[in-house]
Amino acid sequence: MTQPLPVPPGARPREGWFFEDYAVGQRFGHATPRTVTAGDAALYVALTGARQPVHCAEPVARALGHPACPVDDLLAFHVAFGKTVPDISYNAVANLGYADLRFLEPVYPGDTLAAQSQVIGLKQNSGGTSGVVWVASRALNQHGREVISWVRWVMVAKRDAAAPAPATVVPELPKAVEPGRLPVPPFLKPRALQPAATGGARLWEDYAPGETIDHPGAITVEEADHMLATRLYQNTARVHFDAYSAATGPFGKRLVYGGHVISLARALSHDGLENAFAIAAIHGGTHANPTFAGDTIVARSIVTACDPVPGRDDVGALRVRLLAAKNARLATVATPAPGAKDPAVVLDLDLSYLVPRRG
Amino acid sequence: MTQPLPVPPGARPREGWFFEDYAVGQRFGHATPRTVTAGDAALYVALTGARQPVHCAEPVARALGHPACPVDDLLAFHVAFGKTVPDISYNAVANLGYADLRFLEPVYPGDTLAAQSQVIGLKQNSGGTSGVVWVASRALNQHGREVISWVRWVMVAKRDAAAPAPATVVPELPKAVEPGRLPVPPFLKPRALQPAATGGARLWEDYAPGETIDHPGAITVEEADHMLATRLYQNTARVHFDAYSAATGPFGKRLVYGGHVISLARALSHDGLENAFAIAAIHGGTHANPTFAGDTIVARSIVTACDPVPGRDDVGALRVRLLAAKNARLATVATPAPGAKDPAVVLDLDLSYLVPRRG
Amino acid sequence: MTQPLPVPPGARPREGWFFEDYAVGQRFGHATPRTVTAGDAALYVALTGARQPVHCAEPVARALGHPACPVDDLLAFHVAFGKTVPDISYNAVANLGYADLRFLEPVYPGDTLAAQSQVIGLKQNSGGTSGVVWVASRALNQHGREVISWVRWVMVAKRDAAAPAPATVVPELPKAVEPGRLPVPPFLKPRALQPAATGGARLWEDYAPGETIDHPGAITVEEADHMLATRLYQNTARVHFDAYSAATGPFGKRLVYGGHVISLARALSHDGLENAFAIAAIHGGTHANPTFAGDTIVARSIVTACDPVPGRDDVGALRVRLLAAKNARLATVATPAPGAKDPAVVLDLDLSYLVPRRG
Repeated sequence: MTQPLPVPPGARPREGWFFEDYAVGQRFGHATPRTVTAGDAALYVALTGARQPVHCAEPVARALGHPACPVDDLLAFHVAFGKTVPDISYNAVANLGYADLRFLEPVYPGDTLAAQSQVIGLKQNSGGTSGVVWVASRALNQHGREVISWVRWVMVAKRDAAAPAPATVVPELPKAVEPGRLPVPPFLKPRALQPAATGGARLWEDYAPGETIDHPGAITVEEADHMLATRLYQNTARVHFDAYSAATGPFGKRLVYGGHVISLARALSHDGLENAFAIAAIHGGTHANPTFAGDTIVARSIVTACDPVPGRDDVGALRVRLLAAKNARLATVATPAPGAKDPAVVLDLDLSYLVPRRG
Repeated sequence: MTQPLPVPPGARPREGWFFEDYAVGQRFGHATPRTVTAGDAALYVALTGARQPVHCAEPVARALGHPACPVDDLLAFHVAFGKTVPDISYNAVANLGYADLRFLEPVYPGDTLAAQSQVIGLKQNSGGTSGVVWVASRALNQHGREVISWVRWVMVAKRDAAAPAPATVVPELPKAVEPGRLPVPPFLKPRALQPAATGGARLWEDYAPGETIDHPGAITVEEADHMLATRLYQNTARVHFDAYSAATGPFGKRLVYGGHVISLARALSHDGLENAFAIAAIHGGTHANPTFAGDTIVARSIVTACDPVPGRDDVGALRVRLLAAKNARLATVATPAPGAKDPAVVLDLDLSYLVPRRG
Repeated sequence: MTQPLPVPPGARPREGWFFEDYAVGQRFGHATPRTVTAGDAALYVALTGARQPVHCAEPVARALGHPACPVDDLLAFHVAFGKTVPDISYNAVANLGYADLRFLEPVYPGDTLAAQSQVIGLKQNSGGTSGVVWVASRALNQHGREVISWVRWVMVAKRDAAAPAPATVVPELPKAVEPGRLPVPPFLKPRALQPAATGGARLWEDYAPGETIDHPGAITVEEADHMLATRLYQNTARVHFDAYSAATGPFGKRLVYGGHVISLARALSHDGLENAFAIAAIHGGTHANPTFAGDTIVARSIVTACDPVPGRDDVGALRVRLLAAKNARLATVATPAPGAKDPAVVLDLDLSYLVPRRG
């Protein structure tokens, strides 16, 4: 993606953009940059139960070479993602998928994130009342450095069903972030991560493709906490906040922000993936079913690859299929075939963690 | 108001003051000063969805001349207001109105707020079981400088219905804060506010009296989030927290702190008033109807005046009537005549924002 | 307790330890150290309504000799306690009691807490499906200094009811922390605490054994706020979070973390114990009955002793029995005889506060 030029902000309709407003190549410089603080980090812990000590114990972060605790990768992502909502998914019916998401640099309290996007694909749905928009987005810090980049596609309502369909452009997306493109900060000393700090002794060499880890915890989602999380990220998508309108909508109730479910699954996965200290990339994933307040989330990780990271003998990439299911005992949930759906599965994510190597 | 002298704190009855305890001229130095932090600012975003970048993006605040992000005007107000509750509205039946509220100086994380009040009016209700108390209050920072001043009036229960009624004193209050009394920090460089940062291109010259803006968002209030907000402000008014007693009270349930509704309406108003970067004054306002958990809040702004600020050609005041309604589509809510009530309208506020001028 | 040696973290079963896994003398170095921040302190205020200005007003804390606001004693305790949960009470049926809890040093934002424990007692229950585990635990800061130490005992499920019962060891615990063992920071200047700041004029000399204080407030607990609190402390005990499993459990619903109830009672006790500026020790206590979301908590303090602190004429210890009751008007709740139970009483805690002396 080349340097996006912001569309004139005054041009944004107050009700947001609809499907027929998008054109392939269109660029957005999203509004309301956001400084991330220790307050956001504390709230993230309270909202998700995240426990990775790199993000919440200063001595652990400093031992790894960080100047301070970086905020949770997903907190940074949600804030950046939230910036894109007013221009991309304000009128979204559903957030359909992610690809090529890379965490390029750590984000520290005090950093200010801004986001930019470019439309890279469009496809009207057969019903003619909505369509799929693909966008490539990136978050920049206050130094203008790219800290996260990703592609997502989202189903957006049409303002006027009679508006003509645009030419269909379905972008070719990488099936995965190749190991050579997995970002690892050069300063990082992964072997400084102590099992006594994380609570787990297993390192990169101790996992093997095919291993399935049923994480033991479970979290029930309340209306208050998914809304607190989503407002913290300044994500304004209507479907999460407005019970009055939702009562007459497709689900009859508010929808939980899919990113909150990713965060819960990631937090639950700590027990079993204690030394997966950072997310390097999200290769793809879908919110396979909606999540609502009252649902109880459980998580399973299936190791799909153990990739060496080129140029590093101290850290490896653990590729994992992270499933979140709801309102079921994990033992009763069969892992769906890739691409298949199970009514209990709400999240099916393909991601790579960084894990220290024994060396 | 002259310098208040604190009443001896030991004198406060544990159950708080009742209507018959107040006398015109009485002064209170309220307890439990409070240092505002980045943690409070993060929570404020999570609780309200506030997105004005002056309050949450350091580079934006610094460009305007601030040494750091000032906390949201209303966060500072709610904290200061909360300090007054144990002495003024602990036994309040309802918070009836505000007048002459001025934001005199920005409040930054690390500042410590304390509050003082003086009783300026009293009027027993016809029923004889409660009465209206008018108080002039002000918040001071750790340097002893006044940062917010306001008048409010509140209906307070009587301890003993047989207690004699005090002489009625209804204070004369300014109908509005005159433009010459609107505070603008001398250091402020309003033209440094970038439309790309706020998401809106409209400046002071682009609004005109009579314009009505129906803000597109909506927020449903949960018990947990109004109580979190109100506890964050250390506001101890019983009606917000005690479901057990409320079950046998006038509403049968807990009442949402009216200030939370003001914050929600202000946050919702970002879409349409993107460059209204600060509240200079609240001229008046009422909580026209109670708000309860489960209610969905929507907001409308009606521009009532575009006032130049004496001595400044770079910033103007936008006077707005800010309405919040509940459980209704905004399009179906008629703007009540000034002073009139609509059952769906929960907030009717008359305030002035600062907005950059083109110059 | 001698210096514990951590068990190999890899040895922890993913489902946690069960009763038959514990042996007297066994030591745990608990995982996931945690840096406490101003964000945590703000959340603590929002979650509990705590108002003691030593913890939330910088000038008040500095006047007492603190370098900054120490975090609330109970916030530090809950974080430290949370660290012990994965090894001690992950499969707890109930947290039964505390003894010999001492707050040895203040904890400031920026401090990092880690926890260690040693098993000091075991007793299988008569039913054979669970047993009581006694552990001595301590929290260390980043300088390796002990900041809190305590004993607790907890009922833990057995993995296998047929597993043999261990030899019963019931540790001898001090009935109270003797006044000479009550920690008071040497630098502390308690007389600098101003009644105008706390809201109460009563000092140590003004209380007498036998005095009963019915605190006037009440707080209804929501599912969202007890879970936010418990996740903030990174306490992973299953019973607080998983409504799906809880539906078929002994209560049919999630259980509120007992520590949250302690915090609510302590926060409510501010009105009446305004100058009890720190908890020095918790002598003992029990969660007399479970608390659930929807319950409304009220608090009573009964002064049981006014102990001079050896070597200090500026501060005394106020020993208090702190009761929390639910869903009842306090006036209708009789104080149970020590050791007796009342169905409305959920907390019965024996603790000592530090209160300035007149001198």
